[in-house]
Amino acid sequence: MTDKILAEKPPSFARRGSTAEVEEGRAFSPKFDADGLVTCIATDARSGDVLMVAHMNAEALQKTIATGEAWYFSRSRRVLWKKGETSGHVQRVLEMRVDCDQDAIWIKVEQEGPGACHTGRRSCFYRSVPLRQGGAVTLEFRDGDKLFDPKSVYGDKQS
Amino acid sequence: MTDKILAEKPPSFARRGSTAEVEEGRAFSPKFDADGLVTCIATDARSGDVLMVAHMNAEALQKTIATGEAWYFSRSRRVLWKKGETSGHVQRVLEMRVDCDQDAIWIKVEQEGPGACHTGRRSCFYRSVPLRQGGAVTLEFRDGDKLFDPKSVYGDKQS
Repeated sequence: MTDKILAEKPPSFARRGSTAEVEEGRAFSPKFDADGLVTCIATDARSGDVLMVAHMNAEALQKTIATGEAWYFSRSRRVLWKKGETSGHVQRVLEMRVDCDQDAIWIKVEQEGPGACHTGRRSCFYRSVPLRQGGAVTLEFRDGDKLFDPKSVYGDKQS
Repeated sequence: MTDKILAEKPPSFARRGSTAEVEEGRAFSPKFDADGLVTCIATDARSGDVLMVAHMNAEALQKTIATGEAWYFSRSRRVLWKKGETSGHVQRVLEMRVDCDQDAIWIKVEQEGPGACHTGRRSCFYRSVPLRQGGAVTLEFRDGDKLFDPKSVYGDKQS
């Protein structure tokens, strides 16, 4: 079904219009940056926690829309990747939102498996920055337990 | 108090160490991009909804840590700005987190006033992207009611 969508009529984007059209309209015209990317925030649909922040190029965005599973583009490896393709930790997208100027995407996901982070944790945001203090900042671990062994799940990969 | 922190001992960041140090350590060594920015996601501490995505340079990050109120850097206007400086819609930061590779910040905020978005809405993410469909994507409004008149609150500004 989703393969058919991608083969026959992949999701397509509109040209960027005026500010009013971009902000108040119903045409989807994502603003890709100089590298062809938009920022994507994935939150846990149940807890609301931010699981990870990553990037999508046009193809990753099309595949995510068509399949309802999260695809990203790795800036460091310069490749399209499907979340969970190595680890099995697929993200099922329950809802996708776009922001006012259409340069950021928010997906609410059901995270398959114990966690989203390649370090073995539920979320990539496992350290807190203390506030209202000066001088050298020392991070505090929060929900930092490793729920799986990243080496055995990912090997040398990170998806 | 916070002015004193900023004047006498502003929050300072560590040099980037090895991957293991960055991911597993307690030193705060944010990875600013080529433009000197990190991505910041602000979520509503109560609802968990993503309110906005913006950027911080080193100074915005220092001021946010020192004051416990959100400061950002505008890429389009090339200026440091405090959220709410025009609108009064200040964001009080209840918690700040950093991600595994320390290039993204997540703040949980109490949003002062009716909304975070310069369009007059609670969140910048007021439109949904339908999934598992092909062809031209048509957005659907969600929680898209305008809660305030952006012109009367912001004038020509957006903060």
